[in-house]
Amino acid sequence: MKTDLECIPCIIRQCINTLNLTKCSESIKRKTINELLNDLEKIDYDLPPAYNSDIAYIISRKLTGVKDPYYKLKEESNKAALEIYPRLKEIVANSPDRLYAGIKIAVEGNIIDLGISKDGSSLLNFEKIIDDIKNMPFAADDYSKFRKSLGEAKNILYISDNAGELVFDRVFIKELIKQHKNVVLSVKSGPIINDATRKDAEEVGLDSLVKVVETGSDRIGVNFNCTSDEFLKEFRKADLIISKGQGNFETLDDVDANIFFILKAKCEKIARELGINYLDVAIVKRDPRWGSKKV
Amino acid sequence: MKTDLECIPCIIRQCINTLNLTKCSESIKRKTINELLNDLEKIDYDLPPAYNSDIAYIISRKLTGVKDPYYKLKEESNKAALEIYPRLKEIVANSPDRLYAGIKIAVEGNIIDLGISKDGSSLLNFEKIIDDIKNMPFAADDYSKFRKSLGEAKNILYISDNAGELVFDRVFIKELIKQHKNVVLSVKSGPIINDATRKDAEEVGLDSLVKVVETGSDRIGVNFNCTSDEFLKEFRKADLIISKGQGNFETLDDVDANIFFILKAKCEKIARELGINYLDVAIVKRDPRWGSKKV
Repeated sequence: MKTDLECIPCIIRQCINTLNLTKCSESIKRKTINELLNDLEKIDYDLPPAYNSDIAYIISRKLTGVKDPYYKLKEESNKAALEIYPRLKEIVANSPDRLYAGIKIAVEGNIIDLGISKDGSSLLNFEKIIDDIKNMPFAADDYSKFRKSLGEAKNILYISDNAGELVFDRVFIKELIKQHKNVVLSVKSGPIINDATRKDAEEVGLDSLVKVVETGSDRIGVNFNCTSDEFLKEFRKADLIISKGQGNFETLDDVDANIFFILKAKCEKIARELGINYLDVAIVKRDPRWGSKKV
Repeated sequence: MKTDLECIPCIIRQCINTLNLTKCSESIKRKTINELLNDLEKIDYDLPPAYNSDIAYIISRKLTGVKDPYYKLKEESNKAALEIYPRLKEIVANSPDRLYAGIKIAVEGNIIDLGISKDGSSLLNFEKIIDDIKNMPFAADDYSKFRKSLGEAKNILYISDNAGELVFDRVFIKELIKQHKNVVLSVKSGPIINDATRKDAEEVGLDSLVKVVETGSDRIGVNFNCTSDEFLKEFRKADLIISKGQGNFETLDDVDANIFFILKAKCEKIARELGINYLDVAIVKRDPRWGSKKV
C-alpha cells in the first residue's frame, strides 16, 4: 500500500505519543518533531505508510536515547492478557465453531491494541471483551475461504502484531495446532511501538507451543528490505499466511502469497483500501488485484 | 493559550481537509504540505494554536489559488440551518427558561460545526439536534454567573464562530435583545475555514437585527495584531463578551475582559485547558488566572 497525505499527521501523532512515553524534556520533544517534519518533506509516497512511520520511531530513538519506550506497556499488557487467558479459552470451548471463535478472539486482541490508546491503560475489561466477541460484526468476512484454505494447508506462518494481543493469538493458534497444522509465529527482531518481540512470545508461553522466527528487523510490518533469511524461508514455505493488524497489511497487501488479513481498521485509509468503514473489523483474503510482488 | 506539539498534526490535518475541498491536483497538495512542514519547523509555541493554524490556510490559499474553499459549504450550511430555524425558535418558546434554552441552541450550533466534519455533509438531522439540546450535559456550566453578569450588562459583543452556526446564534441573540441589551455581532473580515463573514450574517438575517462589525482580518479567532478599530472599540465598550467556539477561546482566554466562552471541546488540548473531557460542551466564564493581557 502506498502512503497518502493523510498519513503525515498520523505519523507525527505517533511520534508525539512515543515521545510522551519517553518522559524526555519538552525541548527534546520539539527538536525531535522538527527533525521529523524535515524528514517528512522528503517522504516517498510510493512506499507503504509503515515504512514512513518507521522514521518517527528511528528519530525518536536517536534523539531521546530511549530504545524501547513501550517496554513497560508491553510487559503490562502481556500480564493483563494472561490473567484473562483461561476465560478466553472457555469462550472457544463453549463455542459451536471453535475455529471461528478463535478468529474472533484474535481480532479482539487487535481491537484492544494498547499502542493506540492514549492513556496507555493496561486494564482489560473482560466484560467488554466478551461483549465485543459475542457481537463482532465482521464488515468483511472471508471465513469460509479461510476454512477452505486451511483445509488444504500444511504450513502456516502467523505474522504477529502487538504484545498483549499475542495472548489472544495463542487461543487461535491452539485451534490451528489442533487441526494438525505446522504453525510458525513471526515476531519483530527488536522493539518498535508495542509490537511483539521474542521476549513477548516467551512471556505468553508461545515459544513452547510453536516455532518462533524473527522478521529480521525492528521495522513496522514486514519490510522485505531487511527480512531475515529464516523469516523469508518460512514465508516462502507457508501455504497459508495469517497476518495480524495494520502494519502487516500495509506491507503485505501487494505481495503474491496466500494471505488472510485479520485486523481492525484503525484509520480511514485502511478502511478505504479494504472497502469497509473506519473502526470496522475484518478477516480478508488477499486480493491479487492489490499487487503481485514476488518475494 | 499557547501551542502544544499535539497541535502540529492537527494543523496539517486541517490543511489536508482544506486542500481536498479545493479539488487541486495531488502534486499541488504535496507541494503545499511540504511548504507547511517547512514552516512548522519554525513554529512559535508561545502563540495561540489559532495563529499557527492560520499558516495552513495562508499556504493553501497561496499554492492553490482558491481563496475560499469553504464557500459552498458555508452557503449550504446557512441554508440548511435556516430551514430548521422556525423549529429552533419553538424550542425556546416552549422552554421554562428561554435564556438557558437559547444558550443550549447556541452550543448546539457549535456542536454541528460543518468545518470539522470530513464529508462536509450539510444535512442537519433535526431529531438529533432536539435530542442533543434536551440532553445537553454542560461539563462546565457558568450559567448562573452568566445570568448575573447579563443582568448588569448593557453592551454585549457576540463574537461569532462559523457560518450555519450563526442561525443558532440568532435564536440566542434574540433572547438577549428581548432583555433590552445592545448586542453587536462580530464576524471575520474575510474567508477563513467556514468562519462567518458579513455575507453569512446577511444571509441569515442577523444584519437587520444587530450591528455587525468585522474583526479586521481573515485570521482564526481574534488576532489583536490585526483587529479593526471598529472591532477594538466594541470590544472595549462591551461589559459582557460572548465568545463562540475554539478559535476564539484560543485567542481570548488570556485577555483581560468579562468573557463567557460557549463551545464544544473538539480537541484534547482545549478540553484540558477547560478542565473538561474531549467532546464535552461548556459555558465558562473567563478565569483571570488564564492571563491579564490588556487590549
